[in-house]
Amino acid sequence: MEIVLIGSGSVATHLGSALQSKGITIKQVFSRNPENAQHLAKKLNTTYIDDLEDLYLDADLYIYALKDSALKSVLRKMERIPAGIHVHTAGSIPMTDFEGFTGSYGVFYPLQSFSLKKDVDFTQIPICIEASSIEIEQVLFDLAKLLTDKIYTINSEQRKKLHLAAVFACNFTNYMYDIASQILDDSAIQFEIIQPLIAETAEKIKTLSPYDAQTGPAIRFDETTIARHLLMLNKYPEISKIYSLLSKEIHTRHKRS
Amino acid sequence: MEIVLIGSGSVATHLGSALQSKGITIKQVFSRNPENAQHLAKKLNTTYIDDLEDLYLDADLYIYALKDSALKSVLRKMERIPAGIHVHTAGSIPMTDFEGFTGSYGVFYPLQSFSLKKDVDFTQIPICIEASSIEIEQVLFDLAKLLTDKIYTINSEQRKKLHLAAVFACNFTNYMYDIASQILDDSAIQFEIIQPLIAETAEKIKTLSPYDAQTGPAIRFDETTIARHLLMLNKYPEISKIYSLLSKEIHTRHKRS
Repeated sequence: MEIVLIGSGSVATHLGSALQSKGITIKQVFSRNPENAQHLAKKLNTTYIDDLEDLYLDADLYIYALKDSALKSVLRKMERIPAGIHVHTAGSIPMTDFEGFTGSYGVFYPLQSFSLKKDVDFTQIPICIEASSIEIEQVLFDLAKLLTDKIYTINSEQRKKLHLAAVFACNFTNYMYDIASQILDDSAIQFEIIQPLIAETAEKIKTLSPYDAQTGPAIRFDETTIARHLLMLNKYPEISKIYSLLSKEIHTRHKRS
Repeated sequence: MEIVLIGSGSVATHLGSALQSKGITIKQVFSRNPENAQHLAKKLNTTYIDDLEDLYLDADLYIYALKDSALKSVLRKMERIPAGIHVHTAGSIPMTDFEGFTGSYGVFYPLQSFSLKKDVDFTQIPICIEASSIEIEQVLFDLAKLLTDKIYTINSEQRKKLHLAAVFACNFTNYMYDIASQILDDSAIQFEIIQPLIAETAEKIKTLSPYDAQTGPAIRFDETTIARHLLMLNKYPEISKIYSLLSKEIHTRHKRS
Protein backbone atom coordinates (compact mmCIF):
# COMPACT_ATOMS: atom_id res chain seq x y z
CA MET A 1 0.00 0.00 0.00
CA GLU A 2 1.26 3.46 -0.95
CA ILE A 3 0.46 6.38 1.30
CA VAL A 4 0.90 10.14 0.92
CA LEU A 5 1.05 12.16 4.12
CA ILE A 6 -0.49 15.62 3.91
CA GLY A 7 0.94 17.42 6.93
CA SER A 8 4.16 17.16 8.90
CA GLY A 9 3.22 17.74 12.52
CA SER A 10 3.26 15.32 15.43
CA VAL A 11 0.36 13.14 14.21
CA ALA A 12 1.85 12.82 10.69
CA THR A 13 5.24 12.04 12.20
CA HIS A 14 4.17 9.40 14.70
CA LEU A 15 1.57 7.81 12.41
CA GLY A 16 3.90 7.84 9.38
CA SER A 17 6.74 6.22 11.33
CA ALA A 18 4.45 3.60 12.85
CA LEU A 19 2.93 2.64 9.49
CA GLN A 20 6.30 2.54 7.78
CA SER A 21 7.65 0.24 10.49
CA LYS A 22 4.84 -2.17 9.54
CA GLY A 23 5.94 -2.31 5.90
CA ILE A 24 3.65 0.37 4.48
CA THR A 25 5.24 2.62 1.82
CA ILE A 26 5.19 6.32 2.61
CA LYS A 27 5.43 7.64 -0.95
CA GLN A 28 5.50 11.37 -0.32
CA VAL A 29 5.15 14.00 2.39
CA PHE A 30 3.47 17.36 1.76
CA SER A 31 3.75 20.44 3.90
CA ARG A 32 3.39 24.00 2.74
CA ASN A 33 6.41 24.66 4.93
CA PRO A 34 9.31 23.12 2.93
CA GLU A 35 11.58 22.76 5.96
CA ASN A 36 9.00 20.77 7.87
CA ALA A 37 8.23 18.67 4.79
CA GLN A 38 11.92 17.95 4.26
CA HIS A 39 12.48 17.16 7.92
CA LEU A 40 9.74 14.52 8.02
CA ALA A 41 10.65 13.13 4.56
CA LYS A 42 14.21 12.65 5.75
CA LYS A 43 13.01 10.87 8.88
CA LEU A 44 10.85 8.57 6.75
CA ASN A 45 13.46 8.26 4.01
CA THR A 46 11.05 9.42 1.31
CA THR A 47 10.37 12.44 -0.95
CA TYR A 48 8.63 15.65 -0.04
CA ILE A 49 6.74 18.47 -1.78
CA ASP A 50 5.66 21.91 -0.64
CA ASP A 51 3.51 22.60 -3.70
CA LEU A 52 0.33 20.62 -4.26
CA GLU A 53 0.93 20.78 -8.03
CA ASP A 54 3.57 18.11 -7.47
CA LEU A 55 1.26 15.77 -5.61
CA TYR A 56 1.76 12.08 -6.37
CA LEU A 57 -1.56 10.98 -7.87
CA ASP A 58 -1.36 7.21 -7.73
CA ALA A 59 -1.27 6.53 -3.98
CA ASP A 60 -3.83 4.21 -2.40
CA LEU A 61 -4.37 6.43 0.61
CA TYR A 62 -3.99 10.14 1.35
CA ILE A 63 -3.79 10.93 5.06
CA TYR A 64 -4.57 14.54 5.96
CA ALA A 65 -2.96 15.18 9.35
CA LEU A 66 -3.58 18.91 9.48
CA LYS A 67 -4.80 21.60 11.81
CA ASP A 68 -8.59 21.36 12.16
CA SER A 69 -9.19 24.45 10.07
CA ALA A 70 -6.89 23.56 7.14
CA LEU A 71 -8.52 20.50 5.54
CA LYS A 72 -10.93 22.23 3.17
CA SER A 73 -8.47 24.88 2.07
CA VAL A 74 -5.89 22.21 1.18
CA LEU A 75 -8.50 20.26 -0.80
CA ARG A 76 -9.51 23.44 -2.65
CA LYS A 77 -5.90 24.04 -3.63
CA MET A 78 -5.55 20.66 -5.33
CA GLU A 79 -5.81 20.90 -9.11
CA ARG A 80 -6.91 17.33 -9.31
CA ILE A 81 -8.11 15.13 -6.47
CA PRO A 82 -6.35 11.76 -6.70
CA ALA A 83 -8.47 8.64 -7.09
CA GLY A 84 -7.31 6.95 -3.87
CA ILE A 85 -8.94 7.00 -0.44
CA HIS A 86 -8.80 10.27 1.48
CA VAL A 87 -8.89 10.31 5.29
CA HIS A 88 -8.31 12.92 7.95
CA THR A 89 -7.06 12.30 11.48
CA ALA A 90 -9.04 14.94 13.36
CA GLY A 91 -11.42 14.53 16.27
CA SER A 92 -13.63 17.49 15.63
CA ILE A 93 -14.10 17.53 11.82
CA PRO A 94 -17.02 15.62 10.26
CA MET A 95 -16.16 13.03 7.63
CA THR A 96 -18.39 14.85 5.16
CA ASP A 97 -15.91 17.70 4.80
CA PHE A 98 -14.52 15.57 1.95
CA GLU A 99 -17.85 15.69 0.10
CA GLY A 100 -17.76 17.58 -3.16
CA PHE A 101 -14.06 16.82 -3.51
CA THR A 102 -14.06 13.01 -3.68
CA GLY A 103 -16.37 10.06 -3.16
CA SER A 104 -13.80 7.85 -1.41
CA TYR A 105 -13.17 9.13 2.04
CA GLY A 106 -13.09 8.42 5.72
CA VAL A 107 -11.54 9.18 9.08
CA PHE A 108 -8.54 7.58 10.77
CA TYR A 109 -8.43 9.22 14.20
CA PRO A 110 -5.82 8.02 16.70
CA LEU A 111 -7.19 9.08 20.09
CA GLN A 112 -4.05 10.21 21.84
CA SER A 113 -2.21 13.39 22.76
CA PHE A 114 0.96 13.37 20.64
CA SER A 115 4.11 15.36 21.32
CA LEU A 116 6.98 15.39 18.86
CA LYS A 117 9.44 14.85 21.70
CA LYS A 118 7.74 11.86 23.24
CA ASP A 119 7.61 8.41 21.68
CA VAL A 120 4.30 6.60 21.66
CA ASP A 121 3.36 2.95 21.73
CA PHE A 122 0.69 2.55 19.05
CA THR A 123 -0.47 -0.78 20.47
CA GLN A 124 -1.89 1.29 23.36
CA ILE A 125 -3.63 3.85 21.15
CA PRO A 126 -7.30 3.49 20.17
CA ILE A 127 -7.91 4.24 16.49
CA CYS A 128 -11.38 5.47 15.57
CA ILE A 129 -12.41 4.82 11.99
CA GLU A 130 -15.32 5.89 9.81
CA ALA A 131 -15.71 5.57 6.04
CA SER A 132 -17.91 6.50 3.11
CA SER A 133 -18.35 2.83 2.17
CA ILE A 134 -18.04 -0.64 3.72
CA GLU A 135 -15.11 -1.40 1.41
CA ILE A 136 -13.17 1.64 2.57
CA GLU A 137 -14.02 0.88 6.18
CA GLN A 138 -12.43 -2.54 5.68
CA VAL A 139 -9.26 -0.98 4.22
CA LEU A 140 -8.99 1.39 7.19
CA PHE A 141 -9.68 -1.41 9.64
CA ASP A 142 -6.93 -3.57 8.15
CA LEU A 143 -4.52 -0.63 8.27
CA ALA A 144 -5.40 0.18 11.89
CA LYS A 145 -5.03 -3.50 12.76
CA LEU A 146 -1.35 -3.30 11.82
CA LEU A 147 -0.88 -0.82 14.65
CA THR A 148 -3.33 -1.69 17.44
CA ASP A 149 -6.11 -3.99 18.57
CA LYS A 150 -8.08 -1.04 19.95
CA ILE A 151 -10.14 -0.20 16.85
CA TYR A 152 -13.49 1.53 17.14
CA THR A 153 -16.04 2.42 14.47
CA ILE A 154 -17.19 5.87 15.53
CA ASN A 155 -19.45 8.10 13.46
CA SER A 156 -18.87 11.83 13.03
CA GLU A 157 -21.52 12.80 15.58
CA GLN A 158 -19.97 10.51 18.21
CA ARG A 159 -16.45 11.58 17.32
CA LYS A 160 -17.33 15.23 18.06
CA LYS A 161 -18.47 14.17 21.52
CA LEU A 162 -15.41 11.99 21.98
CA HIS A 163 -13.20 14.95 21.17
CA LEU A 164 -15.08 17.07 23.71
CA ALA A 165 -14.70 14.33 26.34
CA ALA A 166 -10.98 14.17 25.51
CA VAL A 167 -10.63 17.88 26.29
CA PHE A 168 -11.85 17.18 29.82
CA ALA A 169 -9.91 13.91 30.24
CA CYS A 170 -6.63 15.31 28.89
CA ASN A 171 -6.40 19.09 28.51
CA PHE A 172 -8.36 20.06 31.61
CA THR A 173 -6.86 17.22 33.64
CA ASN A 174 -3.40 18.43 32.72
CA TYR A 175 -4.43 21.93 33.82
CA MET A 176 -5.38 20.50 37.24
CA TYR A 177 -1.82 19.12 37.43
CA ASP A 178 -0.54 22.54 36.43
CA ILE A 179 -2.47 24.25 39.23
CA ALA A 180 -1.16 21.67 41.73
CA SER A 181 2.38 22.36 40.53
CA GLN A 182 1.90 26.12 40.99
CA ILE A 183 0.71 25.63 44.56
CA LEU A 184 3.64 23.31 45.30
CA ASP A 185 6.21 25.59 43.63
CA ASP A 186 5.03 28.53 45.70
CA SER A 187 5.42 26.41 48.85
CA ALA A 188 8.92 25.13 47.94
CA ILE A 189 7.71 21.54 47.60
CA GLN A 190 8.98 19.42 44.68
CA PHE A 191 6.34 18.42 42.13
CA GLU A 192 7.61 14.82 42.15
CA ILE A 193 6.01 14.26 45.55
CA ILE A 194 2.57 14.35 43.96
CA GLN A 195 3.34 12.19 40.92
CA PRO A 196 2.41 8.86 42.59
CA LEU A 197 -0.97 10.35 43.53
CA ILE A 198 -1.52 11.42 39.92
CA ALA A 199 -0.54 7.96 38.68
CA GLU A 200 -2.88 6.21 41.14
CA THR A 201 -5.77 8.55 40.26
CA ALA A 202 -5.36 7.64 36.58
CA GLU A 203 -4.97 3.97 37.47
CA LYS A 204 -8.05 3.76 39.68
CA ILE A 205 -10.54 4.47 36.88
CA LYS A 206 -9.46 1.27 35.15
CA THR A 207 -11.30 -0.71 37.83
CA LEU A 208 -13.73 1.82 39.34
CA SER A 209 -15.92 4.28 37.44
CA PRO A 210 -14.80 7.91 37.96
CA TYR A 211 -18.12 8.45 39.73
CA ASP A 212 -17.32 5.71 42.28
CA ALA A 213 -13.67 6.74 42.54
CA GLN A 214 -14.50 10.31 43.59
CA THR A 215 -13.05 11.32 46.97
CA GLY A 216 -12.12 14.61 48.64
CA PRO A 217 -13.59 17.36 50.78
CA ALA A 218 -16.14 18.39 48.13
CA ILE A 219 -18.00 15.08 47.91
CA ARG A 220 -18.69 15.03 51.66
CA PHE A 221 -19.06 18.82 51.64
CA ASP A 222 -16.50 19.26 54.39
CA GLU A 223 -17.08 22.99 54.81
CA THR A 224 -14.22 23.49 57.28
CA THR A 225 -11.61 22.09 54.90
CA ILE A 226 -13.13 23.87 51.89
CA ALA A 227 -13.08 27.20 53.77
CA ARG A 228 -9.47 26.62 54.82
CA HIS A 229 -8.47 25.82 51.24
CA LEU A 230 -10.19 28.91 49.89
CA LEU A 231 -8.37 31.01 52.48
CA MET A 232 -5.05 29.62 51.24
CA LEU A 233 -6.08 30.51 47.68
CA ASN A 234 -6.70 34.16 48.58
CA LYS A 235 -3.81 35.36 46.48
CA TYR A 236 -4.86 33.29 43.43
CA PRO A 237 -8.33 34.65 42.58
CA GLU A 238 -8.71 32.59 39.35
CA ILE A 239 -7.72 29.32 40.99
CA SER A 240 -10.00 30.14 43.89
CA LYS A 241 -12.90 30.53 41.44
CA ILE A 242 -12.09 27.13 39.89
CA TYR A 243 -11.88 25.53 43.35
CA SER A 244 -15.31 26.87 44.33
CA LEU A 245 -17.03 25.93 41.10
CA LEU A 246 -15.63 22.39 40.95
CA SER A 247 -16.33 21.74 44.65
CA LYS A 248 -19.90 22.93 44.24
CA GLU A 249 -20.48 20.76 41.17
CA ILE A 250 -18.92 17.64 42.70
CA HIS A 251 -21.13 18.06 45.73
CA THR A 252 -24.27 18.65 43.65
CA ARG A 253 -23.58 15.66 41.41
CA HIS A 254 -23.12 13.29 44.34
CA LYS A 255 -26.07 14.67 46.31
CA ARG A 256 -28.32 14.21 43.28
CA SER A 257 -27.60 10.55 42.76
CA MET B 1 8.11 -1.78 68.07
CA GLU B 2 4.55 -1.88 69.38
CA ILE B 3 1.90 0.22 67.68
CA VAL B 4 -1.71 1.06 68.55
CA LEU B 5 -3.97 2.09 65.69
CA ILE B 6 -6.59 4.69 66.55
CA GLY B 7 -9.08 4.41 63.70
CA SER B 8 -10.21 1.61 61.39
CA GLY B 9 -10.75 3.23 57.99
CA SER B 10 -8.82 2.77 54.77
CA VAL B 11 -5.63 4.54 55.96
CA ALA B 12 -5.52 2.53 59.22
CA THR B 13 -6.18 -0.67 57.29
CA HIS B 14 -3.58 -0.22 54.55
CA LEU B 15 -0.94 1.30 56.83
CA GLY B 16 -1.52 -1.29 59.58
CA SER B 17 -1.22 -4.20 57.14
CA ALA B 18 1.87 -2.76 55.49
CA LEU B 19 3.65 -2.16 58.82
CA GLN B 20 2.69 -5.57 60.15
CA SER B 21 4.08 -7.23 57.02
CA LYS B 22 7.40 -5.60 57.88
CA GLY B 23 7.51 -7.19 61.31
CA ILE B 24 5.99 -4.37 63.35
CA THR B 25 3.59 -5.44 66.12
CA ILE B 26 0.10 -3.99 65.89
CA LYS B 27 -0.83 -4.30 69.56
CA GLN B 28 -4.39 -2.97 69.47
CA VAL B 29 -6.99 -1.32 67.25
CA PHE B 30 -9.42 1.28 68.53
CA SER B 31 -12.60 2.42 66.84
CA ARG B 32 -15.66 3.82 68.55
CA ASN B 33 -17.57 1.56 66.19
CA PRO B 34 -17.00 -1.95 67.64
CA GLU B 35 -17.77 -3.74 64.38
CA ASN B 36 -15.19 -1.76 62.45
CA ALA B 37 -12.66 -2.23 65.24
CA GLN B 38 -13.27 -5.95 65.31
CA HIS B 39 -13.11 -6.22 61.52
CA LEU B 40 -9.68 -4.58 61.31
CA ALA B 41 -8.38 -6.40 64.41
CA LYS B 42 -9.34 -9.71 62.82
CA LYS B 43 -7.57 -8.75 59.60
CA LEU B 44 -4.44 -7.86 61.58
CA ASN B 45 -4.83 -10.79 63.97
CA THR B 46 -4.77 -8.54 67.04
CA THR B 47 -7.08 -7.20 69.75
CA TYR B 48 -9.55 -4.34 69.53
CA ILE B 49 -11.27 -1.88 71.84
CA ASP B 50 -14.20 0.48 71.33
CA ASP B 51 -13.73 2.26 74.64
CA LEU B 52 -10.69 4.45 75.24
CA GLU B 53 -10.69 3.40 78.89
CA ASP B 54 -9.24 0.10 77.70
CA LEU B 55 -6.40 1.71 75.75
CA TYR B 56 -3.10 -0.14 75.91
CA LEU B 57 -0.74 2.32 77.57
CA ASP B 58 2.69 0.86 76.84
CA ALA B 59 2.91 1.10 73.06
CA ASP B 60 5.83 2.89 71.42
CA LEU B 61 3.65 4.61 68.85
CA TYR B 62 0.01 5.64 68.62
CA ILE B 63 -1.16 6.28 65.06
CA TYR B 64 -4.31 8.39 64.79
CA ALA B 65 -5.85 7.61 61.38
CA LEU B 66 -9.08 9.49 61.86
CA LYS B 67 -11.38 11.90 60.09
CA ASP B 68 -9.81 15.36 60.08
CA SER B 69 -12.24 16.68 62.67
CA ALA B 70 -11.96 13.82 65.17
CA LEU B 71 -8.38 14.05 66.48
CA LYS B 72 -8.85 16.52 69.31
CA SER B 73 -12.10 15.01 70.53
CA VAL B 74 -10.47 11.57 70.75
CA LEU B 75 -7.52 13.03 72.69
CA ARG B 76 -9.91 14.77 75.05
CA LYS B 77 -11.68 11.50 75.77
CA MET B 78 -8.49 9.76 76.89
CA GLU B 79 -8.26 9.52 80.67
CA ARG B 80 -4.51 9.29 80.45
CA ILE B 81 -2.33 10.05 77.44
CA PRO B 82 0.18 7.21 77.02
CA ALA B 83 3.86 8.04 77.16
CA GLY B 84 4.71 6.85 73.62
CA ILE B 85 4.91 8.89 70.44
CA HIS B 86 1.61 10.18 68.99
CA VAL B 87 1.24 10.83 65.27
CA HIS B 88 -1.66 11.58 62.97
CA THR B 89 -1.88 10.73 59.27
CA ALA B 90 -3.80 13.76 58.01
CA GLY B 91 -2.86 16.24 55.32
CA SER B 92 -4.74 19.22 56.62
CA ILE B 93 -4.23 19.12 60.41
CA PRO B 94 -1.25 20.92 61.95
CA MET B 95 1.10 18.85 64.08
CA THR B 96 0.47 21.19 67.00
CA ASP B 97 -3.04 19.82 67.52
CA PHE B 98 -1.28 17.39 69.89
CA GLU B 99 0.00 20.25 72.07
CA GLY B 100 -1.47 20.35 75.55
CA PHE B 101 -2.03 16.59 75.40
CA THR B 102 1.50 15.26 75.01
CA GLY B 103 5.03 16.46 74.31
CA SER B 104 5.97 13.55 71.99
CA TYR B 105 4.20 13.92 68.72
CA GLY B 106 4.46 14.14 64.98
CA VAL B 107 2.86 13.44 61.63
CA PHE B 108 3.10 10.36 59.44
CA TYR B 109 1.18 11.32 56.29
CA PRO B 110 1.10 8.86 53.38
CA LEU B 111 0.28 10.99 50.33
CA GLN B 112 -2.08 8.73 48.47
CA SER B 113 -5.79 8.26 47.85
CA PHE B 114 -6.70 5.02 49.60
CA SER B 115 -9.75 2.88 48.90
CA LEU B 116 -10.58 -0.13 51.03
CA LYS B 117 -11.25 -2.20 47.92
CA LYS B 118 -8.00 -1.42 46.14
CA ASP B 119 -4.61 -2.74 47.21
CA VAL B 120 -1.73 -0.31 47.29
CA ASP B 121 1.99 -0.69 46.78
CA PHE B 122 3.59 1.26 49.63
CA THR B 123 6.96 1.40 47.87
CA GLN B 124 5.26 3.86 45.47
CA ILE B 125 3.73 6.04 48.18
CA PRO B 126 5.50 9.16 49.46
CA ILE B 127 5.39 9.45 53.25
CA CYS B 128 5.60 12.96 54.70
CA ILE B 129 6.92 13.17 58.22
CA GLU B 130 7.20 15.92 60.81
CA ALA B 131 8.03 15.62 64.51
CA SER B 132 8.24 17.55 67.75
CA SER B 133 11.90 16.55 68.19
CA ILE B 134 14.84 15.30 66.14
CA GLU B 135 14.73 11.98 68.01
CA ILE B 136 11.07 11.40 67.12
CA GLU B 137 11.74 12.44 63.53
CA GLN B 138 14.38 9.72 63.36
CA VAL B 139 11.93 7.12 64.71
CA LEU B 140 9.35 8.12 62.11
CA PHE B 141 11.95 8.15 59.34
CA ASP B 142 13.10 4.63 60.24
CA LEU B 143 9.50 3.44 60.30
CA ALA B 144 8.70 5.04 56.93
CA LYS B 145 11.90 3.56 55.52
CA LEU B 146 10.48 0.07 56.09
CA LEU B 147 7.73 0.91 53.60
CA THR B 148 9.14 3.29 51.00
CA ASP B 149 12.17 5.25 49.82
CA LYS B 150 10.01 8.29 49.11
CA ILE B 151 10.27 10.03 52.48
CA TYR B 152 9.85 13.80 52.78
CA THR B 153 10.22 16.07 55.79
CA ILE B 154 7.33 18.48 55.37
CA ASN B 155 6.29 21.05 57.95
CA SER B 156 2.65 21.74 58.85
CA GLU B 157 2.46 24.90 56.75
CA GLN B 158 3.75 23.05 53.68
CA ARG B 159 1.58 20.02 54.34
CA LYS B 160 -1.55 22.21 54.24
CA LYS B 161 -0.50 23.40 50.78
CA LEU B 162 0.37 19.89 49.72
CA HIS B 163 -3.09 18.75 50.71
CA LEU B 164 -4.63 21.59 48.70
CA ALA B 165 -2.49 20.67 45.68
CA ALA B 166 -3.61 17.05 46.10
CA VAL B 167 -7.25 18.14 45.83
CA PHE B 168 -6.50 19.51 42.36
CA ALA B 169 -4.22 16.66 41.29
CA CYS B 170 -6.55 13.90 42.50
CA ASN B 171 -10.11 14.94 43.38
CA PHE B 172 -10.61 17.54 40.66
CA THR B 173 -8.72 15.46 38.11
CA ASN B 174 -11.01 12.54 38.84
CA TYR B 175 -13.98 14.86 38.37
CA MET B 176 -12.65 15.74 34.90
CA TYR B 177 -12.68 12.00 34.15
CA ASP B 178 -16.22 11.84 35.51
CA ILE B 179 -17.37 14.63 33.19
CA ALA B 180 -15.72 12.88 30.23
CA SER B 181 -17.51 9.66 31.16
CA GLN B 182 -20.88 11.47 31.31
CA ILE B 183 -20.33 12.93 27.83
CA LEU B 184 -19.32 9.50 26.47
CA ASP B 185 -22.20 7.67 28.18
CA ASP B 186 -24.71 10.09 26.70
CA SER B 187 -23.19 9.43 23.26
CA ALA B 188 -23.17 5.63 23.62
CA ILE B 189 -19.38 5.45 23.56
CA GLN B 190 -17.58 3.11 25.99
CA PHE B 191 -15.45 4.85 28.62
CA GLU B 192 -12.57 2.43 27.96
CA ILE B 193 -11.81 4.22 24.68
CA ILE B 194 -10.49 7.21 26.61
CA GLN B 195 -8.46 5.31 29.22
CA PRO B 196 -5.22 5.26 27.18
CA LEU B 197 -5.45 9.05 26.80
CA ILE B 198 -5.90 9.41 30.56
CA ALA B 199 -2.91 7.12 31.18
CA GLU B 200 -0.69 9.04 28.74
CA THR B 201 -1.73 12.40 30.24
CA ALA B 202 -0.67 11.17 33.70
CA GLU B 203 2.51 9.65 32.24
CA LYS B 204 3.60 12.78 30.35
CA ILE B 205 4.11 14.91 33.44
CA LYS B 206 6.86 12.57 34.58
CA THR B 207 9.09 13.98 31.82
CA LEU B 208 7.47 17.34 30.95
CA SER B 209 6.18 19.94 33.40
CA PRO B 210 2.35 20.22 33.30
CA TYR B 211 2.87 23.74 31.97
CA ASP B 212 4.87 22.42 28.99
CA ALA B 213 2.58 19.44 28.51
CA GLN B 214 -0.53 21.60 28.08
CA THR B 215 -2.34 21.09 24.75
CA GLY B 216 -5.88 21.60 23.48
CA PRO B 217 -8.12 24.22 21.93
CA ALA B 218 -7.89 26.56 24.94
CA ILE B 219 -4.14 27.11 24.85
CA ARG B 220 -4.20 28.27 21.23
CA PHE B 221 -7.59 29.92 21.85
CA ASP B 222 -9.18 28.10 18.94
CA GLU B 223 -12.48 29.98 19.13
CA THR B 224 -14.22 27.86 16.48
CA THR B 225 -13.63 24.61 18.36
CA ILE B 226 -14.44 26.20 21.72
CA ALA B 227 -17.72 27.57 20.36
CA ARG B 228 -18.59 24.17 18.87
CA HIS B 229 -17.86 22.48 22.18
CA LEU B 230 -19.97 24.94 24.15
CA LEU B 231 -22.82 24.34 21.71
CA MET B 232 -22.62 20.60 22.41
CA LEU B 233 -22.71 21.37 26.13
CA ASN B 234 -25.96 23.34 25.85
CA LYS B 235 -27.92 20.77 27.80
CA TYR B 236 -25.32 20.58 30.60
CA PRO B 237 -25.23 24.14 31.99
CA GLU B 238 -22.87 23.31 34.89
CA ILE B 239 -20.35 21.50 32.71
CA SER B 240 -20.56 24.33 30.21
CA LYS B 241 -19.64 26.79 32.96
CA ILE B 242 -16.64 24.63 33.90
CA TYR B 243 -15.56 24.38 30.25
CA SER B 244 -15.66 28.17 29.82
CA LEU B 245 -13.85 28.98 33.04
CA LEU B 246 -11.06 26.43 32.53
CA SER B 247 -10.57 27.39 28.87
CA LYS B 248 -10.34 31.05 29.80
CA GLU B 249 -7.82 30.40 32.56
CA ILE B 250 -5.65 28.09 30.45
CA HIS B 251 -5.54 30.73 27.75
CA THR B 252 -4.75 33.54 30.19
CA ARG B 253 -2.00 31.55 31.88
CA HIS B 254 -0.26 30.73 28.62
CA LYS B 255 -0.67 34.22 27.19
CA ARG B 256 0.89 35.72 30.34
CA SER B 257 4.08 33.70 30.27
